[in-house]
Amino acid sequence: MALIVEKFGGSSLADVQKLRNAAAIVASDYTKENSVVVVVSAQGDTTDNLLELCGAFGRHVPERERDALLATGEQVSAALMAMALCELEVPAVSLCGWQAGVHTDGNHGAARIEDVDTARIRAELAAGRVVVAAGFQGLSAAGDITTIGRGGSDTTAVALAAALGADVCRIYTDVDGVYSADPRIVPSAVRHYEIDYDEMLELATLGAQVLHNRSVEMAKRFGVQLEVRNSFKNSAGTRVREVSMEKRTVSGTAQDRNVALCSLERSGDKPDGMYRLLSLLAQHKIHVDTLLWTPASAGGRCTLTFSVPRMAVDRTAELVAQHASELGFEGLRINDRVCKISVVGAGMVSGCGVAAQMLEALYQAGVEVLCVTTSEIKISVIVPEQDGQRALSAVHDTFF
Amino acid sequence: MALIVEKFGGSSLADVQKLRNAAAIVASDYTKENSVVVVVSAQGDTTDNLLELCGAFGRHVPERERDALLATGEQVSAALMAMALCELEVPAVSLCGWQAGVHTDGNHGAARIEDVDTARIRAELAAGRVVVAAGFQGLSAAGDITTIGRGGSDTTAVALAAALGADVCRIYTDVDGVYSADPRIVPSAVRHYEIDYDEMLELATLGAQVLHNRSVEMAKRFGVQLEVRNSFKNSAGTRVREVSMEKRTVSGTAQDRNVALCSLERSGDKPDGMYRLLSLLAQHKIHVDTLLWTPASAGGRCTLTFSVPRMAVDRTAELVAQHASELGFEGLRINDRVCKISVVGAGMVSGCGVAAQMLEALYQAGVEVLCVTTSEIKISVIVPEQDGQRALSAVHDTFF
Repeated sequence: MALIVEKFGGSSLADVQKLRNAAAIVASDYTKENSVVVVVSAQGDTTDNLLELCGAFGRHVPERERDALLATGEQVSAALMAMALCELEVPAVSLCGWQAGVHTDGNHGAARIEDVDTARIRAELAAGRVVVAAGFQGLSAAGDITTIGRGGSDTTAVALAAALGADVCRIYTDVDGVYSADPRIVPSAVRHYEIDYDEMLELATLGAQVLHNRSVEMAKRFGVQLEVRNSFKNSAGTRVREVSMEKRTVSGTAQDRNVALCSLERSGDKPDGMYRLLSLLAQHKIHVDTLLWTPASAGGRCTLTFSVPRMAVDRTAELVAQHASELGFEGLRINDRVCKISVVGAGMVSGCGVAAQMLEALYQAGVEVLCVTTSEIKISVIVPEQDGQRALSAVHDTFF
Repeated sequence: MALIVEKFGGSSLADVQKLRNAAAIVASDYTKENSVVVVVSAQGDTTDNLLELCGAFGRHVPERERDALLATGEQVSAALMAMALCELEVPAVSLCGWQAGVHTDGNHGAARIEDVDTARIRAELAAGRVVVAAGFQGLSAAGDITTIGRGGSDTTAVALAAALGADVCRIYTDVDGVYSADPRIVPSAVRHYEIDYDEMLELATLGAQVLHNRSVEMAKRFGVQLEVRNSFKNSAGTRVREVSMEKRTVSGTAQDRNVALCSLERSGDKPDGMYRLLSLLAQHKIHVDTLLWTPASAGGRCTLTFSVPRMAVDRTAELVAQHASELGFEGLRINDRVCKISVVGAGMVSGCGVAAQMLEALYQAGVEVLCVTTSEIKISVIVPEQDGQRALSAVHDTFF
């Protein structure tokens, strides 16, 4: 008797037929005498459609209200999934975030899960029912509906698996598992049957789009065993394990289009300007990824280059303009026609020459490299957006 | 400083422009230093569309899950209305039924409001915010989302008005007020500027479709002053008052298409059959309206004729077939191509000749009368559906 948490993404629930398919997967696990908790995302394009609705009411829609609106997407999926299960004679009950005991902070739009009160879920499981929990949402201490950020249903699934002590957390999606690159973009991509948390985390953070990086972090912290599976095929998928016996030098490549490159020049004598700028952006929840500080060449000026998510470009420009004099920066330039290509591998630190091999592949492909950053287990380059796909293929094929 | 509860129906919120129009009405009341609680229905055809979604999962969809699904319709409206108000710089907060303190019994699909815990609403009003509550929904003692039946947002509005001791409860809709007949069907209909609870109740029950009858009952019980207004025109509408100084003989006429006529013949010697049948239908929440028991003529058989809502026809037939022998009835005939035409008036009891005048009008119009029932303040006839509109016009025009 095992406890399984299974998460289905929006593409696996997009219409009645797909919902039935997902319900059949759940039903086959339930009849093997396992307890099953299902976590669902909003169907297909629902979240985007709801965001478009918000758009009608101006740029400064209250985040609390946007959350109340968006949360309906997963509530609909959860109710429909429970109906699909009942049609298969599997007793099931849908729970919204507030019913499932998912408690978050009050940071609307990007709330953090603080704890999960599992009383209701355990009672439903004890009564022999499958619990279908709406992902992506929770309840703040003020009694308001919060959402935990896009792709957050993965995180909901892992949080429930951790809180319930589940034996496994299966993430069902529309791909076969975790690949060395997105197989929809790079046909030569190879599937990993196993991967470790750190590699997965880097791939997720870099836009591999199979698992949300927060969910991988949380799975690692609480030792939740993750499996990525295709909801449309009966295949083994990818298992995310504690640690691999031997690290691959390069485990994957990824492309992230949600990036814009900003640069500023130092105007005044404010040695604390960089610190203050980063602090200001952090206060406004703008995540700075790549960061480069170029010291002044003789007679020249210092340049600060950093990347932010594209949706944060306008807000960044506003903040920089408002605080220009106290920061001592000027001349903001923004390039949002870029994308980030990364190679990742937990063994990279001991495998020399990866950066050289990557940059050579890009050079051979005729792709201009705007910016390079490295960490212990990844190397990222920012390239012009129109070269992104070609760059990804070139980089992937040099390693796989 | 008054407290106003304002309810907007689905047709008043059907698109962004209409939402903005409704928000402007709220904003104009709020800036006069009144506290305002807004109750919203689902937009346009949302509820029907969600019901259609349910339909994909078979005839026996769990009612608990249908409620969880349907409740999203009002949740969406509430969040969008709060956004529209914020766009007008009116601070507003949306609340689902469970947040607004609307506690119901656990009768999914047709829950009764048991009480309203106004703490959260009062706190929001005290903070100077407009509260936008999702109508039609509540929370059961088990912690589940319930819906209170179709048209139930009127009832939510009156329940909140009663619990908060509001000065007035305004029901905004797409007609100018309460008429002597539906002006969309009978062009000669006249508007009432005032009407009393009893007359309104009869008109609502009979399908006048302006106010939900439960809301009128509740308003009468708690002395809530109701106003029916057109959200698209600045007009006085209709006030529903405690009592009129002088009763009109006939205050209105109405047509109800949601009716089917059933008849059964006595087969065995079961004197308790009629009681048992009604009890059986009540247990299954099938509301029997018209009921006629025709004693046996010489050598003939007793006939029981009754009407049920059309959507209950299949269920009624099932129940009658399952219990045929114990009830002692047979030969069920169903006619769902009928409609009910009623005339209503609190003063009817003292005004003779109303039934005669009504039946004469129908005779002159060549409409076949299938069935007649009377109460102290109404007379209803069931006629073939295709004659409904003609019958309503003929009856209306003979009194107005």
